[in-house]
Amino acid sequence: MDNYVRLVQYYETDKMGIVHHSNYIRWFEEARIFCMEKLGFSYKEMEDRGVMLPVTEVSSKYKSSTKYGDKVKIEVRVEKISSAILEFSYVIKDFTSEEVRVLGSSKHCFVDLDFKLVNIKKIMPDFYEKCRNSYN
Amino acid sequence: MDNYVRLVQYYETDKMGIVHHSNYIRWFEEARIFCMEKLGFSYKEMEDRGVMLPVTEVSSKYKSSTKYGDKVKIEVRVEKISSAILEFSYVIKDFTSEEVRVLGSSKHCFVDLDFKLVNIKKIMPDFYEKCRNSYN
Amino acid sequence: MDNYVRLVQYYETDKMGIVHHSNYIRWFEEARIFCMEKLGFSYKEMEDRGVMLPVTEVSSKYKSSTKYGDKVKIEVRVEKISSAILEFSYVIKDFTSEEVRVLGSSKHCFVDLDFKLVNIKKIMPDFYEKCRNSYN
Amino acid sequence: MDNYVRLVQYYETDKMGIVHHSNYIRWFEEARIFCMEKLGFSYKEMEDRGVMLPVTEVSSKYKSSTKYGDKVKIEVRVEKISSAILEFSYVIKDFTSEEVRVLGSSKHCFVDLDFKLVNIKKIMPDFYEKCRNSYN
Repeated sequence: MDNYVRLVQYYETDKMGIVHHSNYIRWFEEARIFCMEKLGFSYKEMEDRGVMLPVTEVSSKYKSSTKYGDKVKIEVRVEKISSAILEFSYVIKDFTSEEVRVLGSSKHCFVDLDFKLVNIKKIMPDFYEKCRNSYN
Repeated sequence: MDNYVRLVQYYETDKMGIVHHSNYIRWFEEARIFCMEKLGFSYKEMEDRGVMLPVTEVSSKYKSSTKYGDKVKIEVRVEKISSAILEFSYVIKDFTSEEVRVLGSSKHCFVDLDFKLVNIKKIMPDFYEKCRNSYN
Repeated sequence: MDNYVRLVQYYETDKMGIVHHSNYIRWFEEARIFCMEKLGFSYKEMEDRGVMLPVTEVSSKYKSSTKYGDKVKIEVRVEKISSAILEFSYVIKDFTSEEVRVLGSSKHCFVDLDFKLVNIKKIMPDFYEKCRNSYN
Repeated sequence: MDNYVRLVQYYETDKMGIVHHSNYIRWFEEARIFCMEKLGFSYKEMEDRGVMLPVTEVSSKYKSSTKYGDKVKIEVRVEKISSAILEFSYVIKDFTSEEVRVLGSSKHCFVDLDFKLVNIKKIMPDFYEKCRNSYN
């Protein structure tokens, strides 16, 4: 699968001169939306159809820092899907040197617009299959 | 009126070592919500009652910078209210030295939850009067 | 000149369901860095050479809102350069419909790494000329 | 130890109507700086003395959501300190109901301004002891 590519923005840095660690959590979001699109699903359409994917867990290991002007690529993939949950993993690397910057993961549940849990296997079987096949 | 007091957060700085200019726009928001509360109105309740106050204009002049660890006070007041619009002004000063950091202003319209313009004088006359009396 | 193109990120929205107005100030930054690169100068290199471009003024008029999933283009250009200051203007439009979303402007001064004003015409004459020629 | 108390800001929400998950990572930062101050150390002074505390790991479990207008308290404490690393844990609760919102942890190393590892036990023995005694 193609990787998600991204430039580091100036406003994402902090006074240490490097990207503030909280921003990588946002990049994970960009990357998993990209990943879903590569699988043929738009997260926007999913929400328009009444299904949201809130984050229930996130973790991040910072191996080396990124700086303003850097270009990174994010390797993102589905690690697991069930009728109730979805998990992604992320590897952020420098685009050129491929040095690892950040390792991360996120877990999500499927809810309707009232935040009630829904069974994704039943209401979006096509999405469930595509995700499952992406790692099987 | 009391001023809004705030500490500068680490994550609000950028690689210049000072607060990124975009964050002052967010502090203006904190300050005007504080201002409305001082006038006896909660912006949260206003939205719960179906009225939103989107920003139509904002401007900001940066006189000197703030740094991590600084404490600032924001002098905020209503500059104008009509049935259709609301304007605030902001002066951000160092809490101790009172040196001016940022001057700003924002303009807002009143809309319902479908973003249709509403007449605030008619639907919330108490709010309209309180705002008007605050600068008359 | 090419326009700067950008997707709206999920984390840039707020509870009104639209992009929070403070984020457009960050997009302006992305756009002017893009503009400088189109003129042949990297802002990163400028800072590496010891010149910073802090914002002294910013203003923004919000004509219509953008939503998650929208694609926008930002028309950005140099409005004025002198030995002491630099001004940019911005027009954010929907990429497809070309409907105007936001109009903005920013003013900047040139400083060294100690925030002392520098004469850009003297220390980076090539940059000064390129900016000047871009609107003359 | 006192808890860190905080209001949810409007600009921290996203289109789901709840606080965007990335912002809790920023609240952790606010809370650990508060924790260090309660132990008698200012993180600002630590950086002024040439020691920085970059994040090497962060994790977060989202138990329930927070909304604009909510008031939260964050229970924060040092979980471990050695000459090389520092760990904090965080429990974010609703201020009134005490319902748990988020559980988190962060790991940090000690570096100088060139990002070289330093031995905190040697260079700031007072800080090391205070942290150690806070959980022993």
